[in-house]
Amino acid sequence: MMFNTALYTDLYQLAMGQAYFLKGKHRTEASFDYFYRKIPFGGGYVLFCGLEDALAWLEEVSFSDDDLEYLKGQGFDARFLEYLKEFRFTGTVRSIPEGELIFPFAPVLSVTGPVVECQIVETFLLNTLNFQSLIATKASRIRYISGEESTLSEFGLRRAQGYAGLQASRAAFAGGFDSTSNVLAGKTYGIPVSGTMAHAYIQSYDDELEAFRDFAETRPENCVLLVDTYNTLESGVPNAITVAREMEASGRKLMGIRLDSGDLAYLSKAARDMLDNAGLYDVKIAASNQLDEHVIRSLREQRAAIDIYGVGTNLVVGHENGALDGVYKLCSFGGHPRIKISENLKKMNFPGKKQVYRYYDRNGQYMADAITGAGALPPHRMAHPFEPGKSMRLDPATARPLLEEVMKNGKRIAGVREVRDIAASGRENLRKLPEEHKRFDFPHVYKVGLGPEMETLRNALKERKLNGDPE
Amino acid sequence: MMFNTALYTDLYQLAMGQAYFLKGKHRTEASFDYFYRKIPFGGGYVLFCGLEDALAWLEEVSFSDDDLEYLKGQGFDARFLEYLKEFRFTGTVRSIPEGELIFPFAPVLSVTGPVVECQIVETFLLNTLNFQSLIATKASRIRYISGEESTLSEFGLRRAQGYAGLQASRAAFAGGFDSTSNVLAGKTYGIPVSGTMAHAYIQSYDDELEAFRDFAETRPENCVLLVDTYNTLESGVPNAITVAREMEASGRKLMGIRLDSGDLAYLSKAARDMLDNAGLYDVKIAASNQLDEHVIRSLREQRAAIDIYGVGTNLVVGHENGALDGVYKLCSFGGHPRIKISENLKKMNFPGKKQVYRYYDRNGQYMADAITGAGALPPHRMAHPFEPGKSMRLDPATARPLLEEVMKNGKRIAGVREVRDIAASGRENLRKLPEEHKRFDFPHVYKVGLGPEMETLRNALKERKLNGDPE
Repeated sequence: MMFNTALYTDLYQLAMGQAYFLKGKHRTEASFDYFYRKIPFGGGYVLFCGLEDALAWLEEVSFSDDDLEYLKGQGFDARFLEYLKEFRFTGTVRSIPEGELIFPFAPVLSVTGPVVECQIVETFLLNTLNFQSLIATKASRIRYISGEESTLSEFGLRRAQGYAGLQASRAAFAGGFDSTSNVLAGKTYGIPVSGTMAHAYIQSYDDELEAFRDFAETRPENCVLLVDTYNTLESGVPNAITVAREMEASGRKLMGIRLDSGDLAYLSKAARDMLDNAGLYDVKIAASNQLDEHVIRSLREQRAAIDIYGVGTNLVVGHENGALDGVYKLCSFGGHPRIKISENLKKMNFPGKKQVYRYYDRNGQYMADAITGAGALPPHRMAHPFEPGKSMRLDPATARPLLEEVMKNGKRIAGVREVRDIAASGRENLRKLPEEHKRFDFPHVYKVGLGPEMETLRNALKERKLNGDPE
Repeated sequence: MMFNTALYTDLYQLAMGQAYFLKGKHRTEASFDYFYRKIPFGGGYVLFCGLEDALAWLEEVSFSDDDLEYLKGQGFDARFLEYLKEFRFTGTVRSIPEGELIFPFAPVLSVTGPVVECQIVETFLLNTLNFQSLIATKASRIRYISGEESTLSEFGLRRAQGYAGLQASRAAFAGGFDSTSNVLAGKTYGIPVSGTMAHAYIQSYDDELEAFRDFAETRPENCVLLVDTYNTLESGVPNAITVAREMEASGRKLMGIRLDSGDLAYLSKAARDMLDNAGLYDVKIAASNQLDEHVIRSLREQRAAIDIYGVGTNLVVGHENGALDGVYKLCSFGGHPRIKISENLKKMNFPGKKQVYRYYDRNGQYMADAITGAGALPPHRMAHPFEPGKSMRLDPATARPLLEEVMKNGKRIAGVREVRDIAASGRENLRKLPEEHKRFDFPHVYKVGLGPEMETLRNALKERKLNGDPE
């Protein structure tokens, strides 16, 4: 595949890599944390997605001869290029599982290895994890408001951002959708594919009824007829009813009809009545046209008779936030914890290799996350990360570590996880998140804090840096 | 490459293809128009981008044995799969040149060929043209406000939507950027690559000055030092000045410094003063951090001393519109013009194969576009497409046809165009668009209309459809 080259990175990673190499520091062990700062869509959580793709890439990534020729032309040093010829990712990755809920500032994934490798893979990791987590989160919001009983089909490929369409379909499924229209995603990731028909097919006939008949004949399973080409209630639905009855006469069933324009609440109820009056209780109603969680919420408030929601553009581009702001920050170099100083406390990162403990309430619901050093036990209290003096008590007996080793020496530890397993655990995890963090309007902020030792270390390093002392 | 499979499409294209095939209609000649309805970013134009990638895909696209095996598992008919084994795109494509300005409702690209081929390729064409046109348009807005004298570097890969990062870098360059950080895009499309350094590199040292020295030593050309890791004006800039002088002493030159946080207007002016006072007039100042056309406009109003703008997220995801709403509509089938009826006149398409004439004013500036039938001469007047009775006079002597044949029988007619040529013609074309269409606030609407015969045909077909007559 075209993207398994280490060239899918920023030039400065290679420039820094060369600097480390020529100074003999490229094998120095470094650790970087991936985390994000701001929840998109005005929501209360992010659903972590993209890890499997990231690990697959880390296992495969290298520079081809072509790539090295290109870099030579860009003025890179011959000794460094010789090194890149054998380049492989040989590091260790610890991560929160894909499909888990993640919250601002807590490390989600941590990479440890020779610094040059950690830098070169940064861009791809950010690119993949930021985007897939964004879309999975959007999908989970749409699932939340649609209820478990609705069928959700993603068909955004035509408006997806170019090649991102492949990953968008994966993430939408991981986030709770039932199927995609994207055939390549279906094949690549084993996601169920679904589809109906377009206006063009009906327009290619002089007669809507004839078009419906031919389509139903050649697609006896899963046949969904698009009923809004001419007039939904006067032509489309009556013709669909005719075909549904003809299908029943030959022992087949029409799966559904699709509304793609007009007032979906009104039309769906009118169409439901017409179908029911014809005894076609099992024929489903699908709706599409600029849907997202807000439109679906309104449709459900109006008790629209919609069984299947087809969601495209707004899902696959993550409208109204096109990116998750995930970053990848150095936290340890040569065995020493590192931080970046900033006048803005929120722009500082936390030093050293870490663990994140999630605490549960008595009902098994998520309560809070505490960030500690990698080897630490779950703490009894945690400090607010940015407001000195604020802290809360915790019960360590309810804590579970979130970061686990998923790759060692460049090889995956566990087997490949199927997207459907990730989707199932996403669903499970969302059930453990209290409703007040899932609501759309001003969701309650989930608490993330620092264990006492982490807070002390962060403050000490900050003081030292501000005093100009070497670390 | 992984995306040159015809599976990168919506399932319904294949379902419709099978219906056409089993009914013996798959070779019927059809024409589809690609056009869009709404200009993104509140702007006055779209810069057309993505055509070369689309044509390259059309020349390559096929189904692999694997793909067909997958489709068999999805229940497709064996005879149809046999047909797909030999599937190639054999149609004709007429298009407006890449890098040209396009306006709502006028056809941008037209595909003519066996209906099954036209349908299967629809999704990829929309996916590629919608996205690249969106990003090229955004890039051109940033160029417009930055002036020709600024250097614009795109470095959005880490926040780009997954694999779309490759196409985003291409489109940003086509839209007026000077370089990208994306090394794969540099290699794939021959775009200049650029990059500076990250905070992590500096943090890996105990001392900022030592980090600067090592970096400058190993990257003597194009060295740009990031000066905000500790304190921009008290540490970063003074250390950069020290290194710049050391470089000069050995006959080298520091290319620039980069500001990545804080008040960019204030810091850039202060840094410029410090550099100038040190006699380092040639050292450039680069700035980054959530830039877009609006932030750059403000920085320029404040006379910030910034030579190089590094733009990431907001450019590559097309913030605040994640998608161009381009559609692909059947306009002719079996030699007969077709339209889709809608209660909303704007949702109807125009019938038959077409030409678009662009009219120029006496200064060679773009004035209006008229949509006509494919063989028609430029008309003397055009009608408003949606407001009956409204029309304007035109001077046919100033008209030039925009749609030209770019692919015949599935083969490109002209050679491959380099992205730098497309970028150059985009720049040229933007100069021909009057300022009032380029301004950010309430730009003047560029006029697109229908030639008299096209208006008559559209109205006649609409009447016939509404009366239920066959076309």
